[in-house]
Amino acid sequence: MPSPTSLDIWQALKRQAETMNQPDNHLSRLLESRERNESCLLQYDGMSYDYVYQRVTPQIMAMLKSLAQEQDICGRFKDMADGKQVNNTEHRAALHMAARQFSDQAVLVDGVDAMPEIRRVRDQIRGFSQDVHAGRIVGSTGKPFRDVVIIGIGGSYLGTEFVSTALQAYAKKGIRLHYLSNVDIHNFGEIAAIIDPEATLWVVVSKSYTTAETLANEMLARQFMFQKGLDPAKHIVAVTSKGSPGDRPENPMLATFHMFDFIGGRYSVTSAVGGVPLSLALGYDIFERFLKGAESMDHHALAADETANIPLTAALISIWNNNFLGYPAQAIIPYATPLRCLASHVQQLNMESNGKMVTANGQFLDIPTGMIQFGEPGTNAQHSFFQLAHQGRPFPVEFIGILEPQYAGLDVKTKGVTGHQELWANLLSQSMSLALGSRGNDVFRYFPGNRPSSLLVLKDLSPERVGGLLSFYEAKTIFEAFVWGINPFDQFGVELGKTMATGIREAMAQKNLDADHNFADVDPISRHYLKQLYQS
Amino acid sequence: MPSPTSLDIWQALKRQAETMNQPDNHLSRLLESRERNESCLLQYDGMSYDYVYQRVTPQIMAMLKSLAQEQDICGRFKDMADGKQVNNTEHRAALHMAARQFSDQAVLVDGVDAMPEIRRVRDQIRGFSQDVHAGRIVGSTGKPFRDVVIIGIGGSYLGTEFVSTALQAYAKKGIRLHYLSNVDIHNFGEIAAIIDPEATLWVVVSKSYTTAETLANEMLARQFMFQKGLDPAKHIVAVTSKGSPGDRPENPMLATFHMFDFIGGRYSVTSAVGGVPLSLALGYDIFERFLKGAESMDHHALAADETANIPLTAALISIWNNNFLGYPAQAIIPYATPLRCLASHVQQLNMESNGKMVTANGQFLDIPTGMIQFGEPGTNAQHSFFQLAHQGRPFPVEFIGILEPQYAGLDVKTKGVTGHQELWANLLSQSMSLALGSRGNDVFRYFPGNRPSSLLVLKDLSPERVGGLLSFYEAKTIFEAFVWGINPFDQFGVELGKTMATGIREAMAQKNLDADHNFADVDPISRHYLKQLYQS
Repeated sequence: MPSPTSLDIWQALKRQAETMNQPDNHLSRLLESRERNESCLLQYDGMSYDYVYQRVTPQIMAMLKSLAQEQDICGRFKDMADGKQVNNTEHRAALHMAARQFSDQAVLVDGVDAMPEIRRVRDQIRGFSQDVHAGRIVGSTGKPFRDVVIIGIGGSYLGTEFVSTALQAYAKKGIRLHYLSNVDIHNFGEIAAIIDPEATLWVVVSKSYTTAETLANEMLARQFMFQKGLDPAKHIVAVTSKGSPGDRPENPMLATFHMFDFIGGRYSVTSAVGGVPLSLALGYDIFERFLKGAESMDHHALAADETANIPLTAALISIWNNNFLGYPAQAIIPYATPLRCLASHVQQLNMESNGKMVTANGQFLDIPTGMIQFGEPGTNAQHSFFQLAHQGRPFPVEFIGILEPQYAGLDVKTKGVTGHQELWANLLSQSMSLALGSRGNDVFRYFPGNRPSSLLVLKDLSPERVGGLLSFYEAKTIFEAFVWGINPFDQFGVELGKTMATGIREAMAQKNLDADHNFADVDPISRHYLKQLYQS
Repeated sequence: MPSPTSLDIWQALKRQAETMNQPDNHLSRLLESRERNESCLLQYDGMSYDYVYQRVTPQIMAMLKSLAQEQDICGRFKDMADGKQVNNTEHRAALHMAARQFSDQAVLVDGVDAMPEIRRVRDQIRGFSQDVHAGRIVGSTGKPFRDVVIIGIGGSYLGTEFVSTALQAYAKKGIRLHYLSNVDIHNFGEIAAIIDPEATLWVVVSKSYTTAETLANEMLARQFMFQKGLDPAKHIVAVTSKGSPGDRPENPMLATFHMFDFIGGRYSVTSAVGGVPLSLALGYDIFERFLKGAESMDHHALAADETANIPLTAALISIWNNNFLGYPAQAIIPYATPLRCLASHVQQLNMESNGKMVTANGQFLDIPTGMIQFGEPGTNAQHSFFQLAHQGRPFPVEFIGILEPQYAGLDVKTKGVTGHQELWANLLSQSMSLALGSRGNDVFRYFPGNRPSSLLVLKDLSPERVGGLLSFYEAKTIFEAFVWGINPFDQFGVELGKTMATGIREAMAQKNLDADHNFADVDPISRHYLKQLYQS
């Protein structure tokens, strides 16, 4: 695969960007073309994506699609779905889409169909969660489970947190989820203070069952159970690889659910990693509806051509904003409180996948890849950081609107409109005012406008639509990576810090054994803080 | 005040930045000077700030201090403390520091001492919260209050949420806080589903008591209470301006606490806006300790010279990273779960204050001002977006460490170290590895390094330290603004969207009265979505 910047089409797009930066091409001018505007709306299965407020013309979109074709991003997406080793640096397939496949089609990994095992794990999750809800599986003192603590790191929880928050209105099983994701004792202390130990199920998520932070937290949990006189074997389940230390008879627990090395942490929400906690909190049926929504969007991402493909188009616009118009960051602003954890999930998904400087072939890139992703719900964001969006440093915004809210029955009217309608008035006016700007009555009220945004609209916040949203952001991230030619499935950037932590950890372990240890082997800056830590 | 870019020192700093961008000045080289390294550590009252991992030399720091002196930022900070109209565009003082002043000193606003009223409100908060805790003030059916819902927008709640989360370990009053900050019916629906209506106190925060979103939510709350047969007058308090519609006898409620137009929303945590909910959740005594911590840092920001002043130094480094080295964003990474809401608060505080393009005198600036601020707690962030920090697009990081954690008694050892020690091993190794980088064994494990960070260390997470942290970020934000010559206290950038929302709201109100209304007066893009909304 050639470096994208070596392509003629890349250079031609750079010239387009120069033209776009002329004052004549202010968004307010682009918006004068009704034909252009109407070409910007894509729709699929309860989702619409509208890039009318992006700084693009039909010609630019056509050129971006040529770029996509030259990089064969649809072909590579299909390779991924077919189980090929698209994660070449780790010699693995990337099969998160298989986790939500309900068809009879085989997915071959090294010649073996992966689907029977995936179906077995789904059936196991259904059976286990139904047993918990019916009180057939209870804690060691006979209490039904009410609190579920998920022990895991980064990738294992941000997606689950996003989905469980988005579907909180469907959580009718009387079970609360808690996330013990950090080795920080504060994280454990806060959870220990509010759970009922006898009614608590601990879900330990670890592919290798050797991750230091996860095992440290599992040990805290076991010690906590011992102190309360509870039997850990009746309060723990594991989500782990077949044959890992968490999957052995000498480590007795209520159940073990397998995860697979062809699904990475940040893509694992639809596997057992998300499946176990989400089925416990929402019920397996809701989880399956969520999976089917993701599956539907997967089909679209795989089958729709470049002109109609929503995640592909969003990826191309992202690359246009990043590499051609030069925006370093993008905001995700859902006008829907239940999507308040979406930005953190996408932040991980996109920044960890695409924060790379080397192509999958090992060539250094001469352009930045991933953008900084951040966001808060609207209208909250309007009253916090939108000042910067309107009058300071510009950044593209992805606005998300919901047509039918979850709690419509509670709404009342003020100023003649419901709260939900008021929310929409704000969403529409923000995207428009960022685009158009205004001369204002004085310099302090001058708005330059020309600030791009997209409108992503969901019919509702049903499990299916939330599944579609998850799949949309996964596919968008992967399409971006394929344009750049990078591998969105590895994460070698996390290794150096871990390696350096080892030396510091070992020095502290020595100090814990020998009070006279003086950290002589540690670098002077760390030594200063280690001494402070032992003085306090 | 001249534009900063017209100063000779600004141009000299630009030349320094060119030199700093030479490979010879990689951070790993700068770190070889022990004298330089030791000059980078500042300390005050249980806080230390270390910029050893920033891309600066003693010469650059001296030049940045000259810039600060030429812009007289200390003089203007003192003007602010003295009650002068530093918020010139709105003709107001900016006296958030007076809210936590416990000395006898007068603070004159237009010739009148503001302190007696501030003290009266503090006393009122103490009395009210003690009455609630003692059960002397109860709901209309006699139940003590257990749930407190804060109705307000943006600035009114992010700071309170940050502080209440940071001090959750001190919340022993059996009262939970909930934030109804969005006009989104989901926000109300989620809260209504979990509170006990008879035991719920609603705190309506609105300076003018005319803000549309706040009043819409107050109406929802009143309707909810009527439906439950409760008397709203016994379940609502207001935090509002003297004489506002929320402060009139025809609007009966349990109590009214005054706020002042010389304290803006994002600077209001230490006023009654934060004081009422925080005193209810934590107790007034804890709130007062928090205030005194903020007061102590205020004294430092006012009195310490440029070389020793922590928030001033942090502001200068921020400007160096932003305007000279060209970083567009900065991450705030507390290695402390209780500080998980800090980044959202600072995001608002800094981006709303400093997202400006015009100086306080009305001159357009030719440089960007505010940076994008975002963050998540470590180690979580290591497993999510630090891939981008190490190998993708660089951004400066503010690491925050805590020497003594809140839940130390629960900690256990794995690999010979406690969880808290493990956390510190990670914090120290991340800052070091970002700075030093590594050649690695292959291109995928190549780390360029030279990525700057600061280390902000707090002795503990006591109320005093959290108050100091709040004041630090306020002062840092204001010092930055004073270097640029902008007004950090206004926010005209929020107005255009509000104005445009009016037209859309009115069209919907018409449609609600007349089903045949066809949105003919609305722009075509908004019209498309309004039609969708009424079809669904």
